[in-house]
Amino acid sequence: MSLREEALELHHKYRGKITVQGKVAVNNGYDLSLAYTPGVAVPCQEIHADVDKVYDYTSKWNMVAVVSNGTAVLGLGDIGPEAALPVMEGKALLFKVFAGIDAFPVCIRARSVEEVVQVVKSIEPTFGGINLEDISAPDCFAIEGRLKEEMSIPVFHDDQHGTAIVTLAALLNALKLVGKKMGEIRVVINGAGSAGIAICKLLLSSGVQDIVMCDRQGAICEGRGGMDPEKEKIAAVTNKDRLRGTLADVLKGSDVFIGVSAANVLSPEAVRKMAPDAIVMAMANPVPEIMPDAAREAGARIVCTGRSDFPNQVNNCLAFPGVFRGALDVRARQINEEMKIAAAYAIAGLVGDEELREDYIIPNAFDRRVAPQVAAGVARAAMESGVARISVDPAAVAGNLEELLSQGL
Amino acid sequence: MSLREEALELHHKYRGKITVQGKVAVNNGYDLSLAYTPGVAVPCQEIHADVDKVYDYTSKWNMVAVVSNGTAVLGLGDIGPEAALPVMEGKALLFKVFAGIDAFPVCIRARSVEEVVQVVKSIEPTFGGINLEDISAPDCFAIEGRLKEEMSIPVFHDDQHGTAIVTLAALLNALKLVGKKMGEIRVVINGAGSAGIAICKLLLSSGVQDIVMCDRQGAICEGRGGMDPEKEKIAAVTNKDRLRGTLADVLKGSDVFIGVSAANVLSPEAVRKMAPDAIVMAMANPVPEIMPDAAREAGARIVCTGRSDFPNQVNNCLAFPGVFRGALDVRARQINEEMKIAAAYAIAGLVGDEELREDYIIPNAFDRRVAPQVAAGVARAAMESGVARISVDPAAVAGNLEELLSQGL
Repeated sequence: MSLREEALELHHKYRGKITVQGKVAVNNGYDLSLAYTPGVAVPCQEIHADVDKVYDYTSKWNMVAVVSNGTAVLGLGDIGPEAALPVMEGKALLFKVFAGIDAFPVCIRARSVEEVVQVVKSIEPTFGGINLEDISAPDCFAIEGRLKEEMSIPVFHDDQHGTAIVTLAALLNALKLVGKKMGEIRVVINGAGSAGIAICKLLLSSGVQDIVMCDRQGAICEGRGGMDPEKEKIAAVTNKDRLRGTLADVLKGSDVFIGVSAANVLSPEAVRKMAPDAIVMAMANPVPEIMPDAAREAGARIVCTGRSDFPNQVNNCLAFPGVFRGALDVRARQINEEMKIAAAYAIAGLVGDEELREDYIIPNAFDRRVAPQVAAGVARAAMESGVARISVDPAAVAGNLEELLSQGL
Repeated sequence: MSLREEALELHHKYRGKITVQGKVAVNNGYDLSLAYTPGVAVPCQEIHADVDKVYDYTSKWNMVAVVSNGTAVLGLGDIGPEAALPVMEGKALLFKVFAGIDAFPVCIRARSVEEVVQVVKSIEPTFGGINLEDISAPDCFAIEGRLKEEMSIPVFHDDQHGTAIVTLAALLNALKLVGKKMGEIRVVINGAGSAGIAICKLLLSSGVQDIVMCDRQGAICEGRGGMDPEKEKIAAVTNKDRLRGTLADVLKGSDVFIGVSAANVLSPEAVRKMAPDAIVMAMANPVPEIMPDAAREAGARIVCTGRSDFPNQVNNCLAFPGVFRGALDVRARQINEEMKIAAAYAIAGLVGDEELREDYIIPNAFDRRVAPQVAAGVARAAMESGVARISVDPAAVAGNLEELLSQGL
């Protein structure tokens, strides 16, 4: 049976990958009087008197909404909210498996920025955090921006920031291995969608000073024309040498290629003209910008992809579970740059200096140490940057999750 | 420890009464490739090609949203969406315990009819049904009306229709016991909120021809004045003798009192003046309109309350689980009058003629036969009235739920 057939069979067999379970027994009238009326009135009154107590008496503390309007699902495009549901259920499943978080898929019929913003704001009371997923660019930027501004729980667009965090983690270790510094390299990012732009911003926040972004028309550069507002903003803070031309043109002499674009768009010739010890992160899925063998043959020293069947997989599962675990545990108001950078350093730090090799710069997605360490780093950064509502020992954040994972949840 | 203290301790211990669980194992990269990318793309594409397949490949078939804006929570009033969350979680828990339904609390920050309608319509793709809860009158009527019109999944305001169904069930058996007929009795309903109006409408649909509704100002009657549009509509179809006056005035000679109002508003004197074999349903919570002992002493032959510590408890748990189970199993487009009446007859039918007594006219909330029988009746009525999207054997609907309940879910 092919993977396609097996995947369909699995979905048909289970008819949904998640279920809502009660945590409290209701076997008789007395149970009912505690969990429901009249007893339930007591926590209701407590929360009415102090709304923060909703974190003590309900599931909110551990509940994340996985929200999509289905406009940019996987590589399938605008397939609508119903067709997006299997992905959002899958994501909810991963939140549970990797971080013990209760996550619920919320596929919404809402097309405009304003509609999405209104719906997501409305459901805030139920949730401790919002994970946006598979919403098309450039709307996803405006939606996330508005929600971060107007909501008091963390809002995180994983296609942007999850990818950016894991990319930064991989880059940190790759640079260590080749002996280059963040402030001295030139990075070329191909693909100016949500992931590409988020990677660019996070690398700039992390000390990279020379980034050239490319879209289908080539290098993004101030005054080029044909650019949406998001690209104009990016043009103003990147490409300091005002390079123009194709991807291959600007890649000459560069240290790092980061692809979040399309299959086979990077030629071996272009890799050959990169600087020595070139780092190639070819993350298009399922077919990367260049196949790892071809990249290495053309002189790349380190190659990453988005695929699990090659070494150095840049997998969002390394980031979002721990990021939300840490944010929830300190009741963070938002997920800021400091927390994202802390997550990247936590991921990178799990590959010890003595283990670091060309084909092992990033931990495996199923390495059980990852989410606890990311959560601890994110919780610490939230507290230090002033967005945490409560103070928690980061070691306890890691320890609690380790214990939970060791019990098989 | 008091019930209040015990209830608060329970809520604090569990920090939420529901949890989201995965149904599919994710232990390695291969599992991940089936439940998430790239395998998940296959069901997505299937649903994109035929949106009805969302019922085959996702949790939608069994997922109900328990929606509240927190404007009329229990007897506590307008306490807001966060403070409503313990109730909605409790309700979700009961959906699971009584009918194996995955239900999720959706507490929304939305005050106007239009806002609530927009949010609930937006989340339709994820859910197989919508249970509205604790939304204040008269907005709840407009909201439910709009949603029934504009959505293609069942929408059910339990405070209205759940209560009405169980009231009708109790009335059917009470009349059997006292030997009176639906078409010949006079019913006085005290309380013209969401429950009272829904009970009135369902009794009219079921053959009762003489109903007088009362609010705080007394009998509702055409031309009385001081009435909202919903009461005006009710006035046009009730009180055919145009009775005016207080509750006690109109109750004289009546056969049935139905109270969904407030503590102690029914005096023994008023009960004494009812017709012989009077039926008193005093359902205010926690303190009924009249205490059962006092009602019986004043001549009532059958007394029901909303409390579990007296006989004949009118408990919504008898209705909503089976109603939704039946509606979901045939993918009903709505929950119509026929389905509600079928639910009431199914509940009433579980008390055999030989068992029927003054203190046993309605089954216990924990009688495991109830939800399967209600589900079967509702499924049949949905198919017969043309709102079912698929055809299922009602016996199988009951049998599946019986099996599920016998496994302890």
